Amino acid sequence: MSNQENKKALGEKAMFACGGQSMKFPAPVFIKESASIVGKKEGEGPLGDLFDMVGDDDMFGCNTWEEAESGLQRDALHLAIQKAGLKTDDIRYLFAGDLLGQSIATSFGLAQFERPLFGLYGACSTCGLSLSLGAMAICGGFAEHVACVTSSHFASAEKEFRFPLGYGNQRPLSASWTVTGSGAFILSGSRGESAKAVITGITPGKIVDFGLKDSMNMGACMAPAAADTIYRNLQDFGRKPEDYDRIITGDLGKVGQRALLDLLLEREIDIAKQHMDCGIEIFDGETQDTHAGGSGCGCAATVLSAYILKKIEEGIWKRVLFVPTGALLSKTSFNEGQNVPGIAHGVVLEHID
Amino acid sequence: MSNQENKKALGEKAMFACGGQSMKFPAPVFIKESASIVGKKEGEGPLGDLFDMVGDDDMFGCNTWEEAESGLQRDALHLAIQKAGLKTDDIRYLFAGDLLGQSIATSFGLAQFERPLFGLYGACSTCGLSLSLGAMAICGGFAEHVACVTSSHFASAEKEFRFPLGYGNQRPLSASWTVTGSGAFILSGSRGESAKAVITGITPGKIVDFGLKDSMNMGACMAPAAADTIYRNLQDFGRKPEDYDRIITGDLGKVGQRALLDLLLEREIDIAKQHMDCGIEIFDGETQDTHAGGSGCGCAATVLSAYILKKIEEGIWKRVLFVPTGALLSKTSFNEGQNVPGIAHGVVLEHID
Repeated sequence: MSNQENKKALGEKAMFACGGQSMKFPAPVFIKESASIVGKKEGEGPLGDLFDMVGDDDMFGCNTWEEAESGLQRDALHLAIQKAGLKTDDIRYLFAGDLLGQSIATSFGLAQFERPLFGLYGACSTCGLSLSLGAMAICGGFAEHVACVTSSHFASAEKEFRFPLGYGNQRPLSASWTVTGSGAFILSGSRGESAKAVITGITPGKIVDFGLKDSMNMGACMAPAAADTIYRNLQDFGRKPEDYDRIITGDLGKVGQRALLDLLLEREIDIAKQHMDCGIEIFDGETQDTHAGGSGCGCAATVLSAYILKKIEEGIWKRVLFVPTGALLSKTSFNEGQNVPGIAHGVVLEHID
Repeated sequence: MSNQENKKALGEKAMFACGGQSMKFPAPVFIKESASIVGKKEGEGPLGDLFDMVGDDDMFGCNTWEEAESGLQRDALHLAIQKAGLKTDDIRYLFAGDLLGQSIATSFGLAQFERPLFGLYGACSTCGLSLSLGAMAICGGFAEHVACVTSSHFASAEKEFRFPLGYGNQRPLSASWTVTGSGAFILSGSRGESAKAVITGITPGKIVDFGLKDSMNMGACMAPAAADTIYRNLQDFGRKPEDYDRIITGDLGKVGQRALLDLLLEREIDIAKQHMDCGIEIFDGETQDTHAGGSGCGCAATVLSAYILKKIEEGIWKRVLFVPTGALLSKTSFNEGQNVPGIAHGVVLEHID
């Protein structure tokens, strides 16, 4: 279906479920292509063979970790554009962000593309945020192709949020390990020859604050937001968990997963059979010393690109609810004793028949 | 015009000027209401009488500057919703951001509204970014009402980007003074009784890096981005400077203004008669010791709400190009010797006949 047809279909249905917070797109938005680049440790994990590129070391030939993270975004986007058979100029807008203060990985990673940029911040949920806004731009008829890019880097994130790496602090078992990686996605209004999946709706998330303060247990901090977004999605779309082949959170990890399942059971919703978490999948917790699991914008983005989209493309999963999760803290808010609220953005991905 | 009629009008024209980077909205997006709250110093400036609320001191009764900034966002949004005669639940989505690392002013300021949040980061251009995405959501038929909120705070920004205030460092004359303030805007698909202005198009900006590195001269760092966005807007819409009653940048200040006018003259575009800068307007540089002018997300947002929208509503200005400007740096990028690129997002505002 072309973008023009999309717009014809854009009628009264755009404001689906106005009482809720979801949008059901009246016309499909295609994920035309994607690319994933990760660091050495991620390459050694269970999904290692699936990523498009794996770095030899986490500096990626740069002088600083921040530069390395910018390079990840740049290379992921270049690769995604190339795989899609497009030129940079075909990408009308960029929707991108990262975890660093003032989103510098994005600013220095994407400048050379010289495309208009909508800069985003949703902590580790930013992949869902970028796909949501990118899909709205396509569905609304504002662009034929847009790109959505997010990244994280273990070392730049530790520096940004926690302790200097040289300090060698002990990490509790509830802590997660920030993924070094970037995922880039090309969204299009037309299917083309090789689209991977279609985005049929979104459930943008609210900030949910259960009063937790432990930045070393971000899974627990984010689980209430994930539960809220999943609950709202099921309500707004009138679906049951079994209407999804998978409900996939971003980086709750093992502790957050338990909290999520419990919170939804309190609302009489059981997603134990459908639930998967990118943070649990990307590392082998037994051998890689990553404790609760992977985290970061790059976690959900690279797992979506390398693993989830392949399953959807092959039709093994027909419909997936992808819910990247973010913990809303900074070192300033943490040091001032603030809570760590969460946010989670839901994106409905479907197989193209 | 109602949202339904909007969508009918949404035809082939949505992808206006595909070769360019602008969107001309096929249906109007109304700024239904707005609110502005500022600190004491801003209240003592030339526009002091126009703001909705002025604080007695910059702590606003809070324990930290960051909490105070969150409070500004919360109060500005409450007031805007109230002035619009709406309830919180009428606001389908929030588009918001601020200057602080991980956007904590937004996270802790807007949580209690319990509305889905699209978190944004565009440095001091974030007001333009939020209006652009909010307008796309309305024009695309994804919501009937959305809110766009941005803030900055002098003390939280100095702590985030420069020196501890207690250090009492000297500021060069090219430095700007971060505005303490927040502006909130309610965008709607229908005009209602009292809409202030209509958004007819946008020109989302690219990252523009001229290699400047002086974070104490952000006006010069941002001027190339402003020039690029203004140039693109005029090209994409086929307009001349005199087609606008005012072309209003966010926070270039006096140094940046000179650079902007020179850069556009090199392209044979003279906007000297139309140009105005929110940063120059908000303070009296002679008596308030603010050097080049005001800056920050709150600068453009509060001046738009308190001053620009009134002029447009009254028909004194029929068409305005509003171009908030952002400097893309963090203390990390600055300390690592990176440049300070700029970005500027253009929004076309018109009088409602």
